[in-house]
Amino acid sequence: MSSKPKFAVIGGGSWATAIVKMLCENLEEVGWYMRSPYALEHIKQQQHNPNYLSSVEFNVSQLKLSNDINEMVEYADYLIFAIPSAFVHAELEKLTASLKGKIIFSAIKGIVPETSLIVGDHFFTHYKIPFNDIGVITGPCHAEEVALERLSYLTIASADTQKAETVAKYLRSDYIKCSISDDVIGTEYAAMLKNIYALAAGIAHGLGYGDNFQSVLMSNAIREMKRYVKKVHKMKRDINGSAYLGDLLVTGYSVFSRNRMFGNMIGKGYTVKSAQMEMSMIAEGYYATKSAYELNQLKKNKKAKTPIINAVYSILYENKDPKKVFKKLTEKLN
Amino acid sequence: MSSKPKFAVIGGGSWATAIVKMLCENLEEVGWYMRSPYALEHIKQQQHNPNYLSSVEFNVSQLKLSNDINEMVEYADYLIFAIPSAFVHAELEKLTASLKGKIIFSAIKGIVPETSLIVGDHFFTHYKIPFNDIGVITGPCHAEEVALERLSYLTIASADTQKAETVAKYLRSDYIKCSISDDVIGTEYAAMLKNIYALAAGIAHGLGYGDNFQSVLMSNAIREMKRYVKKVHKMKRDINGSAYLGDLLVTGYSVFSRNRMFGNMIGKGYTVKSAQMEMSMIAEGYYATKSAYELNQLKKNKKAKTPIINAVYSILYENKDPKKVFKKLTEKLN
Repeated sequence: MSSKPKFAVIGGGSWATAIVKMLCENLEEVGWYMRSPYALEHIKQQQHNPNYLSSVEFNVSQLKLSNDINEMVEYADYLIFAIPSAFVHAELEKLTASLKGKIIFSAIKGIVPETSLIVGDHFFTHYKIPFNDIGVITGPCHAEEVALERLSYLTIASADTQKAETVAKYLRSDYIKCSISDDVIGTEYAAMLKNIYALAAGIAHGLGYGDNFQSVLMSNAIREMKRYVKKVHKMKRDINGSAYLGDLLVTGYSVFSRNRMFGNMIGKGYTVKSAQMEMSMIAEGYYATKSAYELNQLKKNKKAKTPIINAVYSILYENKDPKKVFKKLTEKLN
Repeated sequence: MSSKPKFAVIGGGSWATAIVKMLCENLEEVGWYMRSPYALEHIKQQQHNPNYLSSVEFNVSQLKLSNDINEMVEYADYLIFAIPSAFVHAELEKLTASLKGKIIFSAIKGIVPETSLIVGDHFFTHYKIPFNDIGVITGPCHAEEVALERLSYLTIASADTQKAETVAKYLRSDYIKCSISDDVIGTEYAAMLKNIYALAAGIAHGLGYGDNFQSVLMSNAIREMKRYVKKVHKMKRDINGSAYLGDLLVTGYSVFSRNRMFGNMIGKGYTVKSAQMEMSMIAEGYYATKSAYELNQLKKNKKAKTPIINAVYSILYENKDPKKVFKKLTEKLN
């Protein structure tokens, strides 16, 4: 019998599919939970996910597939969550199996809307998972490029770097490099904040700002991210590392990012409601903006200076005119 | 009579044309030197530069046009150089007029190949221009977007920030914002180094690396730039400012950058010679690579760690195989 730990991936989207692919390079068996029985059946019959990264062929005998989250929780030592943050609460409500002793890594870039917590905090606060059993898998990484086996770098973070190293060991391959970090809070906040900045980039593009402004916006965004993350959890980190700046860039410069697309529609004059209705996928940055803004406001006289987050918040949640808000924002950037 | 200082722009390319346009927003008269009598005549007759940013219409009565560099030097208080660095030496060889008392701003992003000096150092060393009379105009700024009057941010740097402020005053407009900096050496090196990184991005793209890798490359590039510039001139600076990171991004992510195009051809298998022959414009990064690499080597045991510059150097000047060099480089990035 193998002494390898058992991994299960929770989620049926593109990022979940990419992570299952990475694990399949190294493990004889990989657990994979998704809600849709149709998608599961399709994978069994056709060896690929019908909805995401459908070019990736799986060896089905390697997959332990289930649409029962409790079965997966009981099966695995390491649970990797890769579902939109807006669905985390609902999925976890289904749990009857215990999470005790499980090691939980989040590949989610966002905030759980019901609790306004990043995913690690959510598990810590509501499921009593010790911090040492919590980790984060972060990019810069478009799942689509994993499907193409294009070289990608991940950062695996945990307060217990041994656990991060274990996860890294089973994700690494010819096309995946992994760095280890102990900045679990900083990397998770960075992954969340970058979606707000991608949304801002989309708004700017929709309003007609060009590449010169985009580079200024990103240069200001990384400085704002640095200030924000420092207020949340002060520690020694290089904000220009791949998990922070790299992740910001791969999202902020991607024309396929749904956050950027969502922002672009807002900049072009769609209302928030109509932009949301037009998009079939959830823009994480929408929820992240509210949470990040409110969390910062709570800090009262210890607030981080966040002109970009504030601008996006006032457009999305205070119904302010994007054109006027960005005109004012441009005065604050340098 | 106006008490405004007299400005002349040296150069007939797109960046020179953009700077003349900016100055024309604020000055009754702008001096403009270019070599080509044909282009000058065209501007006089047709109100636009025939070769670059031809959509920009000038009020010709505002322009003091000349193809005699000495006439321009005698005319102006402030000389703004915006010619490819490879032509600086040849242009200055024509000088009979004295540069004494002139204030010289460089809008050139590169190294003078004949002396291996950044432009400011070249004027200081070879023309005895005091450091306080030297400055730099730097982006992030594609000239093409200035033509479209899209909002752009410049950084104007000089040891004498009063002079930087004067230049900024005459460049600012509805679509141009200017920051002042006293880091004249750092901003000029950054502007030069970013072309090497854009070239590296091009090589990576040509070799088939994707957006995930590009973001890791840029994240490593800004850290490398920080180390490099710190060795050249140690002072307090935020490398994530627009003049450093912003300028790196606008170039590194531009598919129109000639450095990136040049790199892309190299990555696709062109020899250096044939790639140069295919390109009608000069890729500044080609010269910058040699100068930056050699300058760093001179520092012996105080060298900055520059894996990206070293990789590009070995491909361009040591005839190494791009595929193998980049494979090794990927091991050094994180």
